[in-house]
Amino acid sequence: MTSPASEARLRVRLGEHSGHTGGLAPGYVQANLVILPEAYVADFLRFCQGNPQACPLLAVSEPGDPALPRVGSDIDIRTDLPRYRVWRNGVLAAEPTEIQALWRDDFVSFLIGCSFSFEQALIEGGISLRHVEQGRNVAMYRTSIATQPAGPFRGSLVVSMRPLRPSDVIRAIQITSRFPAVHGAPVHIGKPELIGIDDLALLDYGDAVEIRDDELPVFWACGVTPQSVVQEAKIPLCITHSPGCLLITDLKNTHLASL
Amino acid sequence: MTSPASEARLRVRLGEHSGHTGGLAPGYVQANLVILPEAYVADFLRFCQGNPQACPLLAVSEPGDPALPRVGSDIDIRTDLPRYRVWRNGVLAAEPTEIQALWRDDFVSFLIGCSFSFEQALIEGGISLRHVEQGRNVAMYRTSIATQPAGPFRGSLVVSMRPLRPSDVIRAIQITSRFPAVHGAPVHIGKPELIGIDDLALLDYGDAVEIRDDELPVFWACGVTPQSVVQEAKIPLCITHSPGCLLITDLKNTHLASL
Repeated sequence: MTSPASEARLRVRLGEHSGHTGGLAPGYVQANLVILPEAYVADFLRFCQGNPQACPLLAVSEPGDPALPRVGSDIDIRTDLPRYRVWRNGVLAAEPTEIQALWRDDFVSFLIGCSFSFEQALIEGGISLRHVEQGRNVAMYRTSIATQPAGPFRGSLVVSMRPLRPSDVIRAIQITSRFPAVHGAPVHIGKPELIGIDDLALLDYGDAVEIRDDELPVFWACGVTPQSVVQEAKIPLCITHSPGCLLITDLKNTHLASL
Repeated sequence: MTSPASEARLRVRLGEHSGHTGGLAPGYVQANLVILPEAYVADFLRFCQGNPQACPLLAVSEPGDPALPRVGSDIDIRTDLPRYRVWRNGVLAAEPTEIQALWRDDFVSFLIGCSFSFEQALIEGGISLRHVEQGRNVAMYRTSIATQPAGPFRGSLVVSMRPLRPSDVIRAIQITSRFPAVHGAPVHIGKPELIGIDDLALLDYGDAVEIRDDELPVFWACGVTPQSVVQEAKIPLCITHSPGCLLITDLKNTHLASL
């Protein structure tokens, strides 16, 4: 009955694991979380539909229901992430380890695919990822690429960047194209100035990474985009995961491959 | 019974068309040709097997048989190309319009996929190809990438180069990955110096093409590779197509897609 994924969720729920989820339950899909009141759900769904590379939706809950049976039989979204971020009018108000006291009957949970899944596929495909080898967070940048707006949700695309040799770039495009549920193919290669990134040393999120002479920077749409957009929409109350503290689902990364 | 492909072959056979085959029978696969005496066939087959991106084999004839029924019901390889090149000890000896007088019982024909097929898929995928728009030949370069040798066949990989914007590079990799029978995905992107091309203005075959500031050079393995290798092997007699004068087959380009 228990899988490594449900075991990891239970440890998180019981407070036995309070840190980042990277490396927990290897092979299982981890998901970004956005919780919104029902009044904003239609707009946010249209936003995700219009920006599928940044906001690939893995699951959406019923209003008020903390379960997500499509992605895990025993999930309680109020307790199963190590840490949450509570946003009030676009301002970070708290970072609790559970949100049972905040839960409302009109809350809807959105699970959004995360690059951990395609990074596993890249590594298993023989491609070295420097930030993974160095145990650091991926480098992320705001771009000049505008998202497709919907209602109050609008803003610029955030991308993650991984430096790869040209032959690995080709292979990485082939591999990640098979995973549209977790950001899919890159959105840009090689010319950061064309997407509003004038200096790769000036990143907006995550950790800096060296780019060697025989490498190209490769940019994927990033799950930070929906959080950044939700924050800028300044809605009265929303809840997201805390960076690096994701929901571990029962889905296998390999099951997301489209081809 | 007659298709645009067999009609075009008949016009070539009757001498009604003596120029390049580009644009003839749109949508049908055109193939590079190498004809070798049977003594070299095993080595050349191993060479193709070891270098599938440069030498994707569409068909191989029976010894002495000028037909190629797998790729066209009425093909006579001795008459159905507009122009041939006859190589003696690696030296170009003649460029006849038919090779009936030269035919031998031990000749084996190799048909090798050609980039015309994937270029059609790229154009139908919405990607502009500058050399096609300008009515010029693609730019080709010898690289420092060594082919896998087999018997007397060895030498450097020849690549074709197309300048594309980064978003089109990603799309072009996705599209051409579906066509392994016609060179497949690129072999390199963006850093020509890493594959022994120090100056893109100094090409080895074809026509020069402008690369704009918002573009990356994208390199595919090229069907000139096997001809260059066969020439350098200095075998006593072999016959190839003349550049641009290919065999039109009954296969449809769209039928080559692997996914």
